[in-house]
Amino acid sequence: MNIETYFKLSYGLYIVSSHYDGKFNGHINNTVFQVTAEPAKLAVCSNKNNLTTDYILKSKCLTISIIQEEVDLEYIGHFGFKSGRDFNKFEKINYKLSDLGCPVVLDKTIGYFDCELESTFDLGTHILFIVSIKDAQLFDNEKSPLTYSYYRNVIKGVSPKNAPTYIDKDKLSKLEEKPKSKHPQYVCNVCGYVYNPEEGDEENGIPPGTPFEDLPEDWVCPVCGVDKDNFSIL
Amino acid sequence: MNIETYFKLSYGLYIVSSHYDGKFNGHINNTVFQVTAEPAKLAVCSNKNNLTTDYILKSKCLTISIIQEEVDLEYIGHFGFKSGRDFNKFEKINYKLSDLGCPVVLDKTIGYFDCELESTFDLGTHILFIVSIKDAQLFDNEKSPLTYSYYRNVIKGVSPKNAPTYIDKDKLSKLEEKPKSKHPQYVCNVCGYVYNPEEGDEENGIPPGTPFEDLPEDWVCPVCGVDKDNFSIL
Repeated sequence: MNIETYFKLSYGLYIVSSHYDGKFNGHINNTVFQVTAEPAKLAVCSNKNNLTTDYILKSKCLTISIIQEEVDLEYIGHFGFKSGRDFNKFEKINYKLSDLGCPVVLDKTIGYFDCELESTFDLGTHILFIVSIKDAQLFDNEKSPLTYSYYRNVIKGVSPKNAPTYIDKDKLSKLEEKPKSKHPQYVCNVCGYVYNPEEGDEENGIPPGTPFEDLPEDWVCPVCGVDKDNFSIL
Repeated sequence: MNIETYFKLSYGLYIVSSHYDGKFNGHINNTVFQVTAEPAKLAVCSNKNNLTTDYILKSKCLTISIIQEEVDLEYIGHFGFKSGRDFNKFEKINYKLSDLGCPVVLDKTIGYFDCELESTFDLGTHILFIVSIKDAQLFDNEKSPLTYSYYRNVIKGVSPKNAPTYIDKDKLSKLEEKPKSKHPQYVCNVCGYVYNPEEGDEENGIPPGTPFEDLPEDWVCPVCGVDKDNFSIL
């Protein structure tokens, strides 16, 4: 078994959203795929622990907002590594409501699908939703959609624990036999982001070569926003 | 409804293969998705009319060969636009047998999954297979896997009729409001490949600017291999 084979499967990255009782929630999802053409249906897989899963089961509808390629880790962190049980993810986000009443994200997206729940399949940790497409709209036909490969290789992102594609960091670190660095790497216990002192965190003003210990006290994980106390040595 | 939104969903392209009664078959598939991490399971969607679907239901196993980016339309045509009911697709192909006895394609692939069938869901025209991963191997970690986007935009390929992502060519041609060419385009009735006289078919020695009527009599569709009689004016 070579666990790196899993990284050769291709996925897009989307925000799957729903509503219930006047509240909205959404999360980053990479398992959206068309399963039949006539009629047009999609399959969407979601962890049972996700708040959005609850909302979909109750409201029987969901929207799929297609994320554009040009996004930063903060955007992914907002929707992908924080729970809607702790705060309202849509408070500072531009969105509109679909015909079925679910929120469509308008920031950094290129289009969306508005879908009605048809059936569910229990897959243990996850539920597979089969949905029929009631509407599909494009905001921008020129921009490329974000793929998981681009997120991993260019934006340097990882999978959250609830994702079907989550890989245990212990298994991964055994695979990555990199030459030993003078300063150790640290992993975020919440989202799995790895701080590499050789690379720093240039987007947030941390130059390459900065040891973890020398990061300012107000530095937070660029993916999920937790502070330094939530990091462990790799 | 904007049908072009469908093209913003991201997929990989794979060869899903199985065996039955000493025979092998496989087809191009774009719906291979990991649905749970613990234990590792994939969802694979397949048209009920495909011979491989029959074999999977009978043998309860399948392999997923991950196609590399550098392939030509002939390779896709061999696995994707012809039926294993008409000929043995594995006769002139390099392959090996997985532990479960399914063929793994070794030509132009970068790795594979060997999978056992766990459950099936009837989706009308298609069946959704949930499979557990028994083995996963990589032949080549440097090459990129083929995506549907690359196939459409770079290799200029289309979806066969049995694919979940098949788009009716009448709907598509209405969308593509290209400037009228002096010479008309022709579409392959079997696979949907469009011959554009302005582009020609350079891989097969047809220079740009060659009208369809001037193609040599032995010219065949570069995707599925049928002759000129199977083309209609667009």
